[in-house]
Amino acid sequence: MRIPNHIGIIPDGNRRWSVKMGLTKEKGYNMGLYPGVKLFKMCKELGVKELTYYGFTMDNTKRPSIQTKAFTNACIKAVEMLAKEDASLLVVGNTDSPMFPRELLPYTKRKEFGKGGMKVNFLVNYGWEWDLYNIASNKSSIKGSIKNSICYYLNSYDVSRVDLIIRWGGMRRLSGFLPVQSIYSDFYVVDDYWPDFKPEHLHDALSWYDKQDITLGG
Amino acid sequence: MRIPNHIGIIPDGNRRWSVKMGLTKEKGYNMGLYPGVKLFKMCKELGVKELTYYGFTMDNTKRPSIQTKAFTNACIKAVEMLAKEDASLLVVGNTDSPMFPRELLPYTKRKEFGKGGMKVNFLVNYGWEWDLYNIASNKSSIKGSIKNSICYYLNSYDVSRVDLIIRWGGMRRLSGFLPVQSIYSDFYVVDDYWPDFKPEHLHDALSWYDKQDITLGG
Repeated sequence: MRIPNHIGIIPDGNRRWSVKMGLTKEKGYNMGLYPGVKLFKMCKELGVKELTYYGFTMDNTKRPSIQTKAFTNACIKAVEMLAKEDASLLVVGNTDSPMFPRELLPYTKRKEFGKGGMKVNFLVNYGWEWDLYNIASNKSSIKGSIKNSICYYLNSYDVSRVDLIIRWGGMRRLSGFLPVQSIYSDFYVVDDYWPDFKPEHLHDALSWYDKQDITLGG
Repeated sequence: MRIPNHIGIIPDGNRRWSVKMGLTKEKGYNMGLYPGVKLFKMCKELGVKELTYYGFTMDNTKRPSIQTKAFTNACIKAVEMLAKEDASLLVVGNTDSPMFPRELLPYTKRKEFGKGGMKVNFLVNYGWEWDLYNIASNKSSIKGSIKNSICYYLNSYDVSRVDLIIRWGGMRRLSGFLPVQSIYSDFYVVDDYWPDFKPEHLHDALSWYDKQDITLGG
């Protein structure tokens, strides 16, 4: 089976899961922690080289503060859990804003944990405009191949092209997830909510990806 | 029914349709012309305000020249057919390259045809890097809201945010289609090839879109 080098994860449906369980909306975020680590271990075993989790976006922080606090805390815990594994970890997001949690500042330079290995990126207080904005500051340096240069000047420059994006929770939209790196990504949607993660979700996504014809426009 | 303001069309599967019909690959492109006009008329009747067709990309022009010529000619014919309807027409793409057809240069400023009306955009020799590259040339002008400013400095600045993208031919990827305007687009995939367009495809896409919860990240 052809395994994607880089998988993007959009772990959506936490609030809808909470409502389904009769809980208040913010309760679902912590239920996504175990699935996140489980998925990391499965990808490592399969030989995936890079994994990017969509933590939260600058747009998401417009939500009620009880929810904002809950997903921020869940992201902090998730990153701390991944830092106990063997991984090359990086948190990417707008650190100039008060919505970026101070606890995650030490992770904003890529660092090897344990024996290192798979690159794991975690988007925290990420914004697509923020990501592209840096292009504007580097006009004089952008020469030669436009394509390579633009990728180099993204704020997310250390995140590679994504081969497969898996979104939980049934929505068929990218919601600002790495617009440049996802140009040619294959997009697989799981209807179940993220806290209801099952290993079959990943297996099904990979079987589907194995059948896709990758042309990159050629 | 909630009708999207702006629909993006990725008319894929022309080559696979040709092979299925026992024809050489380039034959399918002309078979997409009638579907394109039919779809335009249906959208107009439904009250859609803007429609964007993905003609071809700079990446696509790396294909064998018999195919490149065939899809370029089909795009020229398509734009000329739409110019006979009531529409506000604009062709968007990299005109500095020899792959941009001279015949379409007159359409690269938006112009009203017939009684005007629905905005219709046609991407011809479009490239996502080309679209974003202009941001780099306008550093000094980009002030205030990042979001609004970045959109303003896209080469496709006159194309609005896309609400619904419909892709024919079964592939679940955006392939570089307007990365900024498609940030929050809902993405509907039709398995049939574009030359096999049926009105039901649009109706099914719109019924699906009607059930989506549009949050824009909030």
